Amino acid sequence: MAKNILNHIDSPEDLRKLNKKELDLLSIELRKFIIDIVATKEGHLGASLGVIELTIALHYIFNTPEDLLVWDVGHQAYGHKILTGRRDIFETNRQLNGLSGFPKRDESEFDTFGVGHSSTSISAALGMAIASNLKGETEKQHIAVIGDASIASGMAFEGLNHAGVTNANLLVILNDNAIGIDPSVGALKEYLTKARVGYKPASDNIIEALNFKYFGPVDGHDLEGLLKTLKEMKQIKGPKFLHVITKKGKGLKKAEEDQVKYHAPGKFEPNTGELLKYDTDGLPLKYQDVFGLTLVELAEKNEKIIGITPAMPTGSSLKYMMKAFPERAFDVGIAEQHAVTLSAGMATQGFTVFCAIYSTFLQRAYDQLIHDVAIQNLPVVFCLDRAGLVGEDGATHHGVFDIAYARPIPNLMIAAPRNEVELRNLLYTAQLGLDAPMIIRYPRGRGVLKEWKLPYEKAEIGKAECLKEGSEIAILSLGNMAGNVEMAIEKLNKEDRDKIAHYDMKFVKPLDKKILNKIFGKFSKIITVEDGVIQGGFGSAILEYAASTGFKRDLELLGIPDKFIEQGSVDQLQEMAKINVQGIQQKLESMI
Amino acid sequence: MAKNILNHIDSPEDLRKLNKKELDLLSIELRKFIIDIVATKEGHLGASLGVIELTIALHYIFNTPEDLLVWDVGHQAYGHKILTGRRDIFETNRQLNGLSGFPKRDESEFDTFGVGHSSTSISAALGMAIASNLKGETEKQHIAVIGDASIASGMAFEGLNHAGVTNANLLVILNDNAIGIDPSVGALKEYLTKARVGYKPASDNIIEALNFKYFGPVDGHDLEGLLKTLKEMKQIKGPKFLHVITKKGKGLKKAEEDQVKYHAPGKFEPNTGELLKYDTDGLPLKYQDVFGLTLVELAEKNEKIIGITPAMPTGSSLKYMMKAFPERAFDVGIAEQHAVTLSAGMATQGFTVFCAIYSTFLQRAYDQLIHDVAIQNLPVVFCLDRAGLVGEDGATHHGVFDIAYARPIPNLMIAAPRNEVELRNLLYTAQLGLDAPMIIRYPRGRGVLKEWKLPYEKAEIGKAECLKEGSEIAILSLGNMAGNVEMAIEKLNKEDRDKIAHYDMKFVKPLDKKILNKIFGKFSKIITVEDGVIQGGFGSAILEYAASTGFKRDLELLGIPDKFIEQGSVDQLQEMAKINVQGIQQKLESMI
Repeated sequence: MAKNILNHIDSPEDLRKLNKKELDLLSIELRKFIIDIVATKEGHLGASLGVIELTIALHYIFNTPEDLLVWDVGHQAYGHKILTGRRDIFETNRQLNGLSGFPKRDESEFDTFGVGHSSTSISAALGMAIASNLKGETEKQHIAVIGDASIASGMAFEGLNHAGVTNANLLVILNDNAIGIDPSVGALKEYLTKARVGYKPASDNIIEALNFKYFGPVDGHDLEGLLKTLKEMKQIKGPKFLHVITKKGKGLKKAEEDQVKYHAPGKFEPNTGELLKYDTDGLPLKYQDVFGLTLVELAEKNEKIIGITPAMPTGSSLKYMMKAFPERAFDVGIAEQHAVTLSAGMATQGFTVFCAIYSTFLQRAYDQLIHDVAIQNLPVVFCLDRAGLVGEDGATHHGVFDIAYARPIPNLMIAAPRNEVELRNLLYTAQLGLDAPMIIRYPRGRGVLKEWKLPYEKAEIGKAECLKEGSEIAILSLGNMAGNVEMAIEKLNKEDRDKIAHYDMKFVKPLDKKILNKIFGKFSKIITVEDGVIQGGFGSAILEYAASTGFKRDLELLGIPDKFIEQGSVDQLQEMAKINVQGIQQKLESMI
Repeated sequence: MAKNILNHIDSPEDLRKLNKKELDLLSIELRKFIIDIVATKEGHLGASLGVIELTIALHYIFNTPEDLLVWDVGHQAYGHKILTGRRDIFETNRQLNGLSGFPKRDESEFDTFGVGHSSTSISAALGMAIASNLKGETEKQHIAVIGDASIASGMAFEGLNHAGVTNANLLVILNDNAIGIDPSVGALKEYLTKARVGYKPASDNIIEALNFKYFGPVDGHDLEGLLKTLKEMKQIKGPKFLHVITKKGKGLKKAEEDQVKYHAPGKFEPNTGELLKYDTDGLPLKYQDVFGLTLVELAEKNEKIIGITPAMPTGSSLKYMMKAFPERAFDVGIAEQHAVTLSAGMATQGFTVFCAIYSTFLQRAYDQLIHDVAIQNLPVVFCLDRAGLVGEDGATHHGVFDIAYARPIPNLMIAAPRNEVELRNLLYTAQLGLDAPMIIRYPRGRGVLKEWKLPYEKAEIGKAECLKEGSEIAILSLGNMAGNVEMAIEKLNKEDRDKIAHYDMKFVKPLDKKILNKIFGKFSKIITVEDGVIQGGFGSAILEYAASTGFKRDLELLGIPDKFIEQGSVDQLQEMAKINVQGIQQKLESMI
């Protein structure tokens, strides 16, 4: 019987026919369904397990998709996807041509707004709610479900601040589990915690001060209570706020106990939650760990080093420095804008700040990068993690714009190490003292070397390296693309191979003009390869310099084309962009 | 006597020797000094007049520059500049090679952090305060002075949220005058207003909820009261907050009465405040007004049009639509991130949203542009005001990065009208329905036509126009640069003139590849001209396409070089960048 309920839910309409007992059973089945699939297919686990009851209650009480439901970030929306017609294809989650790991408008009318980055839901739902008012649809409901880490981001505050002076039918549901990917931080979180533990903030609490009608806190795993509260709140017009207490990983003991690890645990045994063991012996370390461990090493000797991360201590591995030097390493929460300007403020006082931030999230602090760091030429070091194609997280998360958006900014240097040793040497060099800000970009995941912990060598700023001499074609790679290029050259026949010269440019800015002048003089054909968008990127920088020197021969740019790249494995996506080994090989063969 | 005090203040040290009566006199003199200079030299008036007493009190009580004072935005820092050694050169304010209109680190050790964009002060001062703690300088004070419009921006909230869990010696002073450039908006503003008018919010107010010690509200024009309160607060460790009530324009009756106009009033009679009359008969309208008035015209016939501005209703002229259609035009305050995602939310419901935002401020919503608008391909129309060099506001405000940062974003169209009629036709076309988002960029200030109100014509997306045929050199201009190019060509002798063809490309994206193919086929030399950075900009787009077609002749890029451009008149700055008439003329002559 139990197995039967979920199997018959093809849309929330089916759900709404269930009785109380069946709804309870459905929550058990749904939780199990998610655990079973994520156990083998991987994905984000804890967040969705925490909102099973809330998801069912929302679709039961509200008339989705007429009523508009926006999930913030979207890690927690697996239950939503499964209940809204995607049960049978859910096993394709995060795969190439499969379901996106996040709500996505193209995928379902129930996904009212595409998400991925945090704290957008209130603004988006408010926009919808104001639109509904203008259309005279004053009964329509608009719901933003947002976590306690996300609501502490400035953008969410901006949404609340605006909503509070409208009569929009906006319901903000705070899914308060006290954790984002890592535990939540900040003064607002401390305030919310008081509410969680039973201390009743005065009636004019922060939320009510912003003109919301405040309800809660309520137990997010009490389905009956949720149904009752939501039904009541549905009758109330204007902006309203429900504080729901949930437990991330709810229903899988190990996931409840280690919420950071079970955010996205990889494969595990579905009944016990036991993680599958992978033999990582002999595999290179992740770039993230090389960064994190190296920073600790450097910070031991250089007390001027500070580390900053906006809510990614585990992902970026700044956690190592936070443990070793808690007074000099800070997780500031989902607050990229603040993280960058805070770093700038510290830099004015003579500290060398390493701001570890994902490439895609630095988009959130683009103005601060220009206005607070680069204009003042403060030597903040941006460790741009997850640069390039990131794989299964898809379009919202690829770090492919950074070169193009950073390159127009005066003063800002942009480096891309091709392996772990180069990353270490750049970090070492940066803390010796720079006279300008610098971006060091490196990819998600494992490096390429067995020996990463070699003695430090000072990197020469703006200096490229010839990795292989050749006679006809110069291929200029950036960062980790060097590996693909090397393998592509290896695959050529001996005669062709000798024609190809390979340069690791290392820096997009400053460019090594000396070596480029030589290259322009010697080769009739040049190819650039980058793990970023072509438009305005590294190859574009080479083109601009080539044009300025009067170079008038073939210059071809390989990189990410001018469209958003969806989810898939990094290998699959590199293949699509023709920057994998085979793609580069084919390009070389076609040019020889 | 009165005149004598200010003349003897060459640094805050001098100020600290004054007695109470002298301080009062100083405040009168300082106010008059600012009025007299701004009356003839122009600049930002109201904000500085509002903080005369606060400025004196801060420098009196705190040990600047040892104690670190950060002014948010910086419009209000004229008094600060005059009291910190820049009295005698203050008349060069905002001029080429003169003082910056904003605090600037290069200019004075008293300017601890460069500003211009809002809401950065808390993060910057907190960074300094944490740095001081690490250095063991636990007595050092760090003060952020922030307005009520700026503190409502998300970034400021992020700073408060972090500060509240530190023991940093941070004093946040809320300069609450209920207005930014336009009147403040939002729920927080309403909350603060309750405090202003004497309603005491409960002791656990928003600020205290974030773990700040809250003081106030106090009268910001009561110097004695300010001195007393600040002296008391100086003794308190950790994050603290002082709510100061001030009046923008204080001391000049007309400025108090019309605070929007007297934010930056142009020239005026210093005693009465009477604005000098300029004869504008026969001058073209401002692009801003063409935008604002056209939008009203279009909105009269198309009820799906919505207008959004983040805190610039007057500057952008969205005020016209806000007046005509208050239910469809919104000032959301200094909340660029929210503005963009709110627009996206509205667009999902079938509305055509015109988001009017300064080019430099869209940098604040770069991620939202990518993540919430472009990935979902929502047809939001970004009316990018003050694109290009803006003149006297300087490095923080030039809108020179937009082409370069927007171009890498898939789906997003980028148009630049060369005159008012083209702007109107683009607006008209956009509201007929687009299948993708679009940026329409136009400069600050007056257009070039007498007749701007011609019948609408539908613009053809991605279509360039040949403005002049020629035989040898093609010059490709974007937007308002067409005017400079036309005049430059006019200045050539007849023979040379015939050699030059001039194309108005109109769109950076999509490029008119058809016309470019013809150009590449016909001309051996091409020049591009843009009012934006060269790196990654419009010229770079032409280069990329040229390279992809195998074009192998001269292609030269004119635009803003790779350095931050300081303040000056637009003419002076265009001259420096060699994109003025003469610069273009010289380039043409050198290439012929």
